[in-house]
Amino acid sequence: MLDRTGLIVTANTPAPLTFLDSVLRGIGQVMLQNNAYAGVLFLIGIFLNSALFGGGVIVGTVVSTLTAQALGAKTSDVRAGLFGFNGALVAIALLYFLEPNALTWGCVVLASACSTVLMAALMQLFKVFNLPVLTAPFVFTSLGFFLAIARFGRLQSTQQLPTAGLPQSTAVEGIVTHTTVIEGLLGGVAQVFFQASVLTGVIFVAALLISSWRACVMALLGSLLGVLIAWGMGAAEPAIRAGAFGFNSVLTAIALGSVFLRPGLGALVYTALGCAATTVVYAGLSAALEPIGMPAMTLPFVLVTWVFVAATPLFARLRAA
Amino acid sequence: MLDRTGLIVTANTPAPLTFLDSVLRGIGQVMLQNNAYAGVLFLIGIFLNSALFGGGVIVGTVVSTLTAQALGAKTSDVRAGLFGFNGALVAIALLYFLEPNALTWGCVVLASACSTVLMAALMQLFKVFNLPVLTAPFVFTSLGFFLAIARFGRLQSTQQLPTAGLPQSTAVEGIVTHTTVIEGLLGGVAQVFFQASVLTGVIFVAALLISSWRACVMALLGSLLGVLIAWGMGAAEPAIRAGAFGFNSVLTAIALGSVFLRPGLGALVYTALGCAATTVVYAGLSAALEPIGMPAMTLPFVLVTWVFVAATPLFARLRAA
Amino acid sequence: MLDRTGLIVTANTPAPLTFLDSVLRGIGQVMLQNNAYAGVLFLIGIFLNSALFGGGVIVGTVVSTLTAQALGAKTSDVRAGLFGFNGALVAIALLYFLEPNALTWGCVVLASACSTVLMAALMQLFKVFNLPVLTAPFVFTSLGFFLAIARFGRLQSTQQLPTAGLPQSTAVEGIVTHTTVIEGLLGGVAQVFFQASVLTGVIFVAALLISSWRACVMALLGSLLGVLIAWGMGAAEPAIRAGAFGFNSVLTAIALGSVFLRPGLGALVYTALGCAATTVVYAGLSAALEPIGMPAMTLPFVLVTWVFVAATPLFARLRAA
Repeated sequence: MLDRTGLIVTANTPAPLTFLDSVLRGIGQVMLQNNAYAGVLFLIGIFLNSALFGGGVIVGTVVSTLTAQALGAKTSDVRAGLFGFNGALVAIALLYFLEPNALTWGCVVLASACSTVLMAALMQLFKVFNLPVLTAPFVFTSLGFFLAIARFGRLQSTQQLPTAGLPQSTAVEGIVTHTTVIEGLLGGVAQVFFQASVLTGVIFVAALLISSWRACVMALLGSLLGVLIAWGMGAAEPAIRAGAFGFNSVLTAIALGSVFLRPGLGALVYTALGCAATTVVYAGLSAALEPIGMPAMTLPFVLVTWVFVAATPLFARLRAA
Repeated sequence: MLDRTGLIVTANTPAPLTFLDSVLRGIGQVMLQNNAYAGVLFLIGIFLNSALFGGGVIVGTVVSTLTAQALGAKTSDVRAGLFGFNGALVAIALLYFLEPNALTWGCVVLASACSTVLMAALMQLFKVFNLPVLTAPFVFTSLGFFLAIARFGRLQSTQQLPTAGLPQSTAVEGIVTHTTVIEGLLGGVAQVFFQASVLTGVIFVAALLISSWRACVMALLGSLLGVLIAWGMGAAEPAIRAGAFGFNSVLTAIALGSVFLRPGLGALVYTALGCAATTVVYAGLSAALEPIGMPAMTLPFVLVTWVFVAATPLFARLRAA
Repeated sequence: MLDRTGLIVTANTPAPLTFLDSVLRGIGQVMLQNNAYAGVLFLIGIFLNSALFGGGVIVGTVVSTLTAQALGAKTSDVRAGLFGFNGALVAIALLYFLEPNALTWGCVVLASACSTVLMAALMQLFKVFNLPVLTAPFVFTSLGFFLAIARFGRLQSTQQLPTAGLPQSTAVEGIVTHTTVIEGLLGGVAQVFFQASVLTGVIFVAALLISSWRACVMALLGSLLGVLIAWGMGAAEPAIRAGAFGFNSVLTAIALGSVFLRPGLGALVYTALGCAATTVVYAGLSAALEPIGMPAMTLPFVLVTWVFVAATPLFARLRAA
């Protein structure tokens, strides 16, 4: 039996069907949607761009969800996809930044399993602070494997991984036009799953719309804010067009604007401030990671959202959702 | 109506006067003094050295305090200047390390507002540990903007920002004389606000004396310890003279020696150990930040004071104030 | 009066004898053994390899334990060696990476004292999370002093300290044979104390066996797993042979497999996953620390064990010991 978020599990629901629904919700949770239909559409959007990444998302989500079940995690958390989204992202990140050979697939399995342990650890620690874990397990697990390239001769990176260097001040590069803004807007949504495709971005927007109109609106506003602030500060045009400055603020906007705060004018202004901070932190973190040749991934979203959610109880004008 | 720390607010006090007093206390809190007169003297000391930095401190403190009020922060916290000192420091740091053009002033406003959110977040998280936030929001907010220079072409640094490089072992440079020690002693106090001026240092010492004789004595002892340890370890003479090795231990000494511990012989020895640790951590952190070309600012003080305050409950010979 | 872990203290036990027992337990705690006999054997193993390091361990453990007593730490914690093991490691690390002159010995005393304050701070903070501190105080205190080399001209490093550089991908180097595996297996145990000696490794294994057969078995399995995973991933043969990829997983295996989890099949599989994660994190962290020229020391063990222990309450198949 289905409802608007996915499968309703009863005593008669076969286990594989329940598991499939958990996995799809896990994929939906990458954009904070506990919604199996969003998961299906995310998967379609990815497969349209790349079968490798689509397959990776399935493997990663299945492994991290299975690990949680095998270790005896709480059923409601597994069902909500909470042990799936970090595995999904770890898998796609490893296949994006490492040569997709047998060792890398082995690492995908190992890393997805580890992401579940890290997720449980952070859930337990963050209970004290009443904070969400977000995609931190994905970021730290991936960083561990990418950094290990420098010691493990059989681990080979792709061209996508930045080369280690020292950060330097930069000049304005390229001219931003209306196509930069439009492609950057949709690219920012697609880049949440490392997809550089406007079409994939459109399908992701549709996926969000099915799950929550507010999340959809916030995602687009967040991406737009990321593009505009990066433009105003003089970021390189190709990076803006690719959505590099948008995907973190997409997630911050969804999180603050549609999940963790009670909607209202105060929440809207606060979310905008959070998106601005996310864009600056993205620029800063991606520079800070240059000496070790690492990408920032969704760490800017994670850090800014932790701060903005943690501050909420002290601000009477804002209320937690 | 005034008392020895500033304005006493009654039902009849006009709002702008109350706000002015909160802002001045915010400036005083940069050296942990909830004292409007100390704030006034700090401001005078800064303006004597530079109108730009003086103006920056006012803008930063006003914006961060207003942000807290607009979001509905607790009145007693706003009145005590708790949402002012990080804004003050963020503003002066941005104007010190970035070219003071229109975009930088825009960043000063944005960063001061963000420092208030980070302050609230850390206050909320640190309640669990019964720890003070100190100037951590200033440090992390500033680092975010400075690092972003490498991605944003319109953000331009001044000569003051270190160039990214790899840390290397060093040789002893220059000869320390009695003028090094005296200038370093007062320079260390002035550098808390990024001011390289002995006169400003003298005024800051007077500001502390008005607020608390113990804070004043501790500040001088902390600065002296920083100078002597750096000298003994073979730090470069120009850096010792400029107060670079002193400003963090000034703050550690005020915090441990006059604010967070009950005074006594045990507290004095413990404070001295904290100042020694701060000087080493300053040297270490400023080297660790070389590959990303960033200054350590007051992070050494923050880290060491967190550790030394957090440890207090386990040491029966020490007592929290 | 002695029992199987060391001295039983009564009203008549002379203070110096009690203190000696506390110090020996502190040395034993480097491998999580509250056992004075293990401490004696560790000391013998170290002295057989180097009198300098043996003397350093004694000085470091004595200073950190005395500091805890002087500040009034809880007697049961001091007696269990909890304020000794970080001092032991700090001392040996400083003597390993810094030229052993008078200033370095002064730093050993200062750093050992600081490690006790950091230990107390983390014990207090981690009470909230019910997590063990492990060797984090050793790692962070040592890093502070090593990094300070770049600012302090009188602090001189030995050849052992890595030179700062940018991490790069690597090729497989050397051929692993059965002697690589055997030497790596025992070297991994010896490297916990920075000793590159198979004989010392054998004595350490004996020390563990006296204290706990399970800890001994786990240490060997952890070291073996580290060697095998590093080999499989293509790590350099000389590093595998030296035990570089094993000493962190030795500690993770002892911690997860014999101290913090109730033994069982689930715990065994979970420990193996933790050892695999530790080996990857060791490779990653040692690369991440290249730009600042720092060694990873036991930080990989600390981080992975924190995560795997913190996650335990959420996994019904595992139970805390």
